[in-house]
Amino acid sequence: MGSRRNFIEKLTVSAVGLPILYHSSNLFAAAEAPYEGPILKVAIMGLGSYGTRVAEAMKDCKRAKLVGVISGTPSKIKDWQSKYGIPKKNCYNYENFDAIKDNPDIDAVYIITPNGLHKDQAIRVAKAGKHVISEKPMAINAEEGQAMVDACKAAKVKLLIGYRMHFEPKTVEVIKMRKNGEFGKVKFFQGQSGFTIGNPNQWRLDKKLAGGGAMMDIGIYSINGARYMLGEDPVWVTAQETKTDPVKFKEGVDETIQFQLGFPSGAVANCLSTYNMSHLDRFFMTGSDGWVEMKPSTGYGPIKGRTHKGELDQPHITHQTLQMDGMAQLIFDGVQPIVPVDGEEGLKDMKIIDAIYKAAKTGDKITIDL
Amino acid sequence: MGSRRNFIEKLTVSAVGLPILYHSSNLFAAAEAPYEGPILKVAIMGLGSYGTRVAEAMKDCKRAKLVGVISGTPSKIKDWQSKYGIPKKNCYNYENFDAIKDNPDIDAVYIITPNGLHKDQAIRVAKAGKHVISEKPMAINAEEGQAMVDACKAAKVKLLIGYRMHFEPKTVEVIKMRKNGEFGKVKFFQGQSGFTIGNPNQWRLDKKLAGGGAMMDIGIYSINGARYMLGEDPVWVTAQETKTDPVKFKEGVDETIQFQLGFPSGAVANCLSTYNMSHLDRFFMTGSDGWVEMKPSTGYGPIKGRTHKGELDQPHITHQTLQMDGMAQLIFDGVQPIVPVDGEEGLKDMKIIDAIYKAAKTGDKITIDL
Repeated sequence: MGSRRNFIEKLTVSAVGLPILYHSSNLFAAAEAPYEGPILKVAIMGLGSYGTRVAEAMKDCKRAKLVGVISGTPSKIKDWQSKYGIPKKNCYNYENFDAIKDNPDIDAVYIITPNGLHKDQAIRVAKAGKHVISEKPMAINAEEGQAMVDACKAAKVKLLIGYRMHFEPKTVEVIKMRKNGEFGKVKFFQGQSGFTIGNPNQWRLDKKLAGGGAMMDIGIYSINGARYMLGEDPVWVTAQETKTDPVKFKEGVDETIQFQLGFPSGAVANCLSTYNMSHLDRFFMTGSDGWVEMKPSTGYGPIKGRTHKGELDQPHITHQTLQMDGMAQLIFDGVQPIVPVDGEEGLKDMKIIDAIYKAAKTGDKITIDL
Repeated sequence: MGSRRNFIEKLTVSAVGLPILYHSSNLFAAAEAPYEGPILKVAIMGLGSYGTRVAEAMKDCKRAKLVGVISGTPSKIKDWQSKYGIPKKNCYNYENFDAIKDNPDIDAVYIITPNGLHKDQAIRVAKAGKHVISEKPMAINAEEGQAMVDACKAAKVKLLIGYRMHFEPKTVEVIKMRKNGEFGKVKFFQGQSGFTIGNPNQWRLDKKLAGGGAMMDIGIYSINGARYMLGEDPVWVTAQETKTDPVKFKEGVDETIQFQLGFPSGAVANCLSTYNMSHLDRFFMTGSDGWVEMKPSTGYGPIKGRTHKGELDQPHITHQTLQMDGMAQLIFDGVQPIVPVDGEEGLKDMKIIDAIYKAAKTGDKITIDL
């Protein structure tokens, strides 16, 4: 990664010579001062609809740039080459992408493929000596997630998870308010994450590729949200599964799961994950001194939020733009986002998902130690 | 009950000679046309703060009138006599109120005492041949509730439960919308019912008098709400209890319980009952074609509600005024409110509460057959 080292040498930190600490207004400052630091050169693996969304968002990045693609579909590669000006030498398929290790023009690979493929792909990227960014869920269970963490550690590359909300300005503001004690003692989080899934033949409804159903795709937002909103990790979980359409939602593919999390402080979370209800996208948290409602709470469009103090007015910026710039800052400058986005963070969510599935299956309260 | 029969003879139904069917606008019509039908003459048992609220609300009733009191505190009786013009002959204490059977000027007794006293008091009222209105919860468990139902049936008097929300115009409108299919197939109900309870020495925190904690007082709104919003009775329940303050919330007095209900259609409900969080008063329901949010959903003040079609604009009328007029209509005219308020309805909630406590204690999914 010689080129990355070159970039680091050119690092100019902030316009006033102070290290840039992450906060929600950073990126406006960055928009004003010409950025002269290193650029994270990213290849996207998996050119589906979310990959396209990330590619579009990266057009506005200051610190990250889409430079390569990995895909099994030659026509998609051709399309992306012309759309994003990607040179042929940075194009790979699933057979030959290990050769990326010899490509100094790629720093990191963003894996945006079906969940069940992440583990092997991440390990191969790590072995190629490139940083791994994995879309969430990082894998289909904690065991696979652990293997990814271990592989990236052994290869001395970063493993980051696509937690775009950790960079979203209103979300960041609420987390800051909680850290500042503005809600008092936080007691309850409620997360509702769901939508009505369409095409029954998509990979997200295939147990082998998705690792599950709604929980793996949308429920994970409530899990992660419970943790970053409350600022604690849960110690127990209970869950109840409901399936009304066993044709569309086959064995091992969850349609609707309600789950509850208990935290060391005594705070509790009550969440819904579903593929069979429309537009459920709400976070609510209440404490001894205040409350917050975010609705939508994790959609791609503008997040809306109100607290006991009034409306949140941080501007909307495309989440994936913030995420990729933030990840570049993390990789090059060691600047952590307000809540971590690394492999260990992803692994916590996987352990919780494993526990939720176990709780739903057995009916037991499952204790967890993250 | 000769006097009641006299009133029935004077019954004039509606101004246009049609039977009055209950709907939310009835009471405005009633306010315009002079009401000439029978008046339900009510004695209130238990002159605490909620008793006072009911007494104040009854000042605006057209079909019901506060005419008597039952209390263990002579000074309270004196105070109420002068405040509400109650004759001495209609005043009783807890020792002598069985004599109410010889008082033709009282049709019904509204029991607004601690939950643990309802059963014996209701049975005594029934034996005195008067209709029983019991504040909710009707008792401290289903067994006691069943005894009340049986006693009232044997005495051929009505047993009604203080379900004021069943008469509240916005709530009635939402139930109508659901019945009309405007939400499509309803799938999910969420209820949050809670507040921060004050004085640790009140009867509501005394297991013997209250029968439990928050669930008996405020959580029951989410139980009842789940049923009237979804229009089904649950078949299973799971629950998780959290106690952060075992001094204030002693053994058997629940502080916070999350519970989940499953319904025959596959719809699910996810609810929170708490005495340790402020101003949690929200119902949410979503279906295949629409949704509704009510917030506040069950407070005494104006209910606010929004659906996929917009704001609900039915006017606020004091709930207890509507309830008591509605109960008079039910007793004299047999006009049922949109959702029943009788003893069997109260018994369903008691059976669900029993199951929730059992589920919370054992961690099991408890099946119920109402």
